[in-house]
Amino acid sequence: MNPTEARIYEALRSVIDPDLHQNIVDAGMVKGLAWNAEDRKVSLTLQLTTPACPLKGYFSSQITEAICRVMGEAWTVEVTFSAQTAGGGVEMLPQVKNLLLVGSGKGGVGKSTVSTNLAIALAQLGARVGLLDADIYGPNVPLLMGLEHAKPAVREKDGRPFLVPIRKYGIEVMSLGFLVPAGQATPWRGPMASNTLRQLLTETDWSELDYLIVDMPPGTGDIQITLAQQFRPQGAIIVTTPQKLAYADAEKAIVMFRMPLVQVPVLGVIENMAYFWTPALPERKFYIFGESRGRMLAEKYGVSFLGEVPLLEEIVQQSDAGIPPALQQGTPVAESFHQIAGEVARALSRQLATATV
Amino acid sequence: MNPTEARIYEALRSVIDPDLHQNIVDAGMVKGLAWNAEDRKVSLTLQLTTPACPLKGYFSSQITEAICRVMGEAWTVEVTFSAQTAGGGVEMLPQVKNLLLVGSGKGGVGKSTVSTNLAIALAQLGARVGLLDADIYGPNVPLLMGLEHAKPAVREKDGRPFLVPIRKYGIEVMSLGFLVPAGQATPWRGPMASNTLRQLLTETDWSELDYLIVDMPPGTGDIQITLAQQFRPQGAIIVTTPQKLAYADAEKAIVMFRMPLVQVPVLGVIENMAYFWTPALPERKFYIFGESRGRMLAEKYGVSFLGEVPLLEEIVQQSDAGIPPALQQGTPVAESFHQIAGEVARALSRQLATATV
Repeated sequence: MNPTEARIYEALRSVIDPDLHQNIVDAGMVKGLAWNAEDRKVSLTLQLTTPACPLKGYFSSQITEAICRVMGEAWTVEVTFSAQTAGGGVEMLPQVKNLLLVGSGKGGVGKSTVSTNLAIALAQLGARVGLLDADIYGPNVPLLMGLEHAKPAVREKDGRPFLVPIRKYGIEVMSLGFLVPAGQATPWRGPMASNTLRQLLTETDWSELDYLIVDMPPGTGDIQITLAQQFRPQGAIIVTTPQKLAYADAEKAIVMFRMPLVQVPVLGVIENMAYFWTPALPERKFYIFGESRGRMLAEKYGVSFLGEVPLLEEIVQQSDAGIPPALQQGTPVAESFHQIAGEVARALSRQLATATV
Repeated sequence: MNPTEARIYEALRSVIDPDLHQNIVDAGMVKGLAWNAEDRKVSLTLQLTTPACPLKGYFSSQITEAICRVMGEAWTVEVTFSAQTAGGGVEMLPQVKNLLLVGSGKGGVGKSTVSTNLAIALAQLGARVGLLDADIYGPNVPLLMGLEHAKPAVREKDGRPFLVPIRKYGIEVMSLGFLVPAGQATPWRGPMASNTLRQLLTETDWSELDYLIVDMPPGTGDIQITLAQQFRPQGAIIVTTPQKLAYADAEKAIVMFRMPLVQVPVLGVIENMAYFWTPALPERKFYIFGESRGRMLAEKYGVSFLGEVPLLEEIVQQSDAGIPPALQQGTPVAESFHQIAGEVARALSRQLATATV
């Protein structure tokens, strides 16, 4: 290593990844370091554990500062980001790096809306994302994705038939709603429900995915147990509203995911319908369902508070129209989903780092 | 029959019960007819098929008018109401006249809030009412009734132990939430869930009840099928919100209740969270979740629209505090629950009349 290279590496060792609690050199994140003494320019690629990392700005400024401190103020630094999504891989689903369950003890807290928009926001941040609608009693994802009349094709692979997931808005989607006629009830007993879901997961021809988001049915029953035991998901995300009723049920979901029988790491809590806001009274937030219980819940169980989504008429309207609001650019709603996506990716990286230590 | 009696009966035959499409004399509703020629006063008791009948005002004025037309304007008429709640009786629950299921395909539409306040409103109208919280995965009734720490006693009867329901706010309450510690998850597989619910129903020492309201878990699974097949309920009430998502799931619930396997008569649809209203902008109703889909659903399936409940901060606050808003007198919220209770009783009377014809 020549003296310049050694000095730059020395500088970079002072930049700490706040999630991994390790410097970026020892964590193996620095790639392709190059410099040009004439132009006084350093360039490098920082390899993140997730493309959805919300810390890009932080790393950029920390790296630039550290290098300029050592090399002189006249130097410029160019940081490029790449990502190698961390993930243990999923049993029975070798092409999926991370299986993430979106759950809530209670129904109607907006789990499907959060799952759908989280999947889209992760994809917009550069990840390869799949979305499985596991709510076999009331599959809502087709409506939210504007895919009410979609019918997946079947493709043969190694002599076995596989369902081809539907691609839309940059993600791969599969839902039981694609397979049963609209309006038809599915009064299935528990074991039948679990089997159906296992099939839907393993007999879909998913691409290589960084994240497969599973929109779970409400409750703490057969499907939750089966998924946890047979697939060993990398994490669970709890959706709640600020209502005391929802809090109690979300608490049960956390307790269930942590049971010895189940054991899925809980990454954190998302609070939906946090407050009602209307342009008719722009200076007010109406805490219709109460205040900040999502944050309380996260604190009580020592998990991350991953963010909040307000209750806006436009979210309901766009969702009902099959256009996930996370698709838009620059709106406060899209912004909150992008923040949440970043926090989810970050909580997962932390969880994986802890698990492998 | 003397001439006066004959003339009064003749007059009463012109009063038609709009639900039964029959005059009140032939329907056997007129009891204890008496008159006093000196005071020019007629008194009678009208026996309704439900104490919660919303038609009392209608009957009073129709009867008074009909009698005065025949006897002369100077006569006064005094109508007293009594009620013999109609109901086939429930298999395996001989002391219960009517078992009513409150369901929705989707969770989180306010089913528990509607069930609790409907039970209380029916009791306030004079009926004997029980409330069973059948949502074994997330029993919310203890919280809504301010009974979070209640523990039911056990009483021996014919050599077998029975749970004693908790009496509060004029109704009898039983919930799985009384039996499992708060915060404990119940990751039960389907058949276990159905068995538990059957036990909870049959091993509770209910009094003689006009209505036993069952707050069902969301979905269309084991519990729904078991309850329908083993107890043959008199009716199902569907709760929905105006959201397109909720509509689709409520539709599935109706279809399920009508399946040959299940066959529970659907009495009608209640729309919860119909609109947001705040004293800060009293002239506006915010249709956050969309408009009037509950009414559309009722029309599509030819069932009654039983009423709507607005989304108000006070409903959430009172519910979270364990004081059902239907308990109050004269507030718009209490008023809407009382109207709904009347409509439910009326739809049930009509359903029973049709079923026995």
